Amino acid sequence: MAATPLDLVGIGNAIVDVIAHADDRFLTAEGLAKGAMTLIDEARGEALYARMGPAVESSGGSAANTIAGFASLGGKAGFIGKVRADQLGQVFRHDIVSLGVAYGTPAAAAGPSTARCLIMVTPDAQRTMATYLGISTELGPEDLDRDAIARAKIVYLEGYLWDPPRAKAAFVEAAKLAHDSGGQVALSLSDVFCIERHRADFRELVEGHVDILFANQAELLALTQAPDFEAALAAIRGKCRVAAVTCSEHGSVILADGKAVKVAAEPVAAVVDTTGAGDLYAAGFLFGLTSGLDMEDCGRLGGLAAAEVIAHVGARPQISLQELATARYPALMPNLKKG
Amino acid sequence: MAATPLDLVGIGNAIVDVIAHADDRFLTAEGLAKGAMTLIDEARGEALYARMGPAVESSGGSAANTIAGFASLGGKAGFIGKVRADQLGQVFRHDIVSLGVAYGTPAAAAGPSTARCLIMVTPDAQRTMATYLGISTELGPEDLDRDAIARAKIVYLEGYLWDPPRAKAAFVEAAKLAHDSGGQVALSLSDVFCIERHRADFRELVEGHVDILFANQAELLALTQAPDFEAALAAIRGKCRVAAVTCSEHGSVILADGKAVKVAAEPVAAVVDTTGAGDLYAAGFLFGLTSGLDMEDCGRLGGLAAAEVIAHVGARPQISLQELATARYPALMPNLKKG
Repeated sequence: MAATPLDLVGIGNAIVDVIAHADDRFLTAEGLAKGAMTLIDEARGEALYARMGPAVESSGGSAANTIAGFASLGGKAGFIGKVRADQLGQVFRHDIVSLGVAYGTPAAAAGPSTARCLIMVTPDAQRTMATYLGISTELGPEDLDRDAIARAKIVYLEGYLWDPPRAKAAFVEAAKLAHDSGGQVALSLSDVFCIERHRADFRELVEGHVDILFANQAELLALTQAPDFEAALAAIRGKCRVAAVTCSEHGSVILADGKAVKVAAEPVAAVVDTTGAGDLYAAGFLFGLTSGLDMEDCGRLGGLAAAEVIAHVGARPQISLQELATARYPALMPNLKKG
Repeated sequence: MAATPLDLVGIGNAIVDVIAHADDRFLTAEGLAKGAMTLIDEARGEALYARMGPAVESSGGSAANTIAGFASLGGKAGFIGKVRADQLGQVFRHDIVSLGVAYGTPAAAAGPSTARCLIMVTPDAQRTMATYLGISTELGPEDLDRDAIARAKIVYLEGYLWDPPRAKAAFVEAAKLAHDSGGQVALSLSDVFCIERHRADFRELVEGHVDILFANQAELLALTQAPDFEAALAAIRGKCRVAAVTCSEHGSVILADGKAVKVAAEPVAAVVDTTGAGDLYAAGFLFGLTSGLDMEDCGRLGGLAAAEVIAHVGARPQISLQELATARYPALMPNLKKG
């Protein structure tokens, strides 16, 4: 990785998204839980792909999307995640490196292919995901760039990393490394079913190891098992330094310093595809945080980055978020020059 | 291919598009002619890709885009073009087969990789293309599905096929097969530089072998070498049964049966990426023609299909054109049920 210090290092599954339109009937026929992420094996992936309509391919992966958004805002970022030396692996690498992200994890020369997420976007712009993790399950502690992690202000981890067993070990070690060198640890809860699979572990993580928590309402309810959203907020309060909870079109609620701050959502002309909304909220929020902004302004930048990504198909920004944010919130982007 | 007769069989380079945003300065630095298609080798492709920004991947290829649009309108179509047995080849095959297109050309087990077109979209929504033809140059007469061609109402050929030498032979043989069995031959002129490379051949083709010609204004001027558009129209009049000439936001002019018909462009809220505009115009036009519509209505369906594709990134329809056309022009889509 680059010798200059990084503001943010993300660790996650390195995935290429395959995005098609579908209707609710198709999801039902395929037995897919709408709005959720289902893990599938390669054979199931091929069978499902064969039944999907025409698709487009776009780099994805939850933490990788966040890192791409953070870099697009002008932040210095690194990414750790495993691809195979295949065409989709090249696509993934190109897309993140071309944003200036330090991405040093070598491509595997053998083993399963690069991970793919089959995404079905329904007419309500909701996305339903079926993920074949492929080579990304082979990410382990030996893939951590310890130097980059030690020098980063924040290490960002996706909850999905808890699914592949070796990544879990990398996750825990990265958190320890970050704390030992004075950095902070951020976690995105990723998905309700992912929380169901690993609730006890996630609770222990959040209480003992996570400084900054990202979740949406459903994920917070799943984690806390609280009866309603207010109770869930009360249950998480004080458990980590910052908890940023997204509420779709109602914006976000940020718990920090003993206060709760509500931030309205950024207006969107037409919501086309919600894939990446949470990932990009985290990108904007963390860019604000590493720039020294207050919670409300962090939430505004998060909302702006999310608004860009849900206005088109695909989970990565299609324009420079630095230019977008400089135009929309010039006061929040004071020291940035147009790249 | 399928045993049922096909209305349209397309022959073309089987390409996956790699689409990124870029500015005019980038095009100049790379020595790329804005708005045109430049042929590049693999090494140049890799170097250019490394300098491009983050991209999305979408199946492309001029004739393949037309066939995809035709199938999306509900037409019965087939495609002939060569991919390699690699991940991008699988993507290309999936995207066209999932529309119901009969695509029987086997993937090559060895040789260069599947063709890629690096597309740079500038802020004015214009696209500039650099194409690495890869395995698609190996398409030859032996790849023609003679039975499908013989039974098709129209065989559609892209001018770009004139670049790979063996495809040229396939092109000529397919035209002969179509005529011998009572079908018609349609040609898209593809690109000004492509015409410059093969003007004499194209003139002979248009005068002797092509029934339906598609071109934009610049291409018609390049073919005829006429001093202005009116003179170019006069020069092409009577040379083939139908000539449909697209004029960007001014719609199209159709020469047929000794008359010239002008059709206004379909309104578009915001033009995002013009890639595929001509290909999709041909798709709508040919769907009208094979459905027995008059020239004006053929032009309307062409304009509608083009309008859909330029409103988003990528050269393939993102929604069902059958549903779009049924909503916009119900009288032109009388016998179609929602798929």
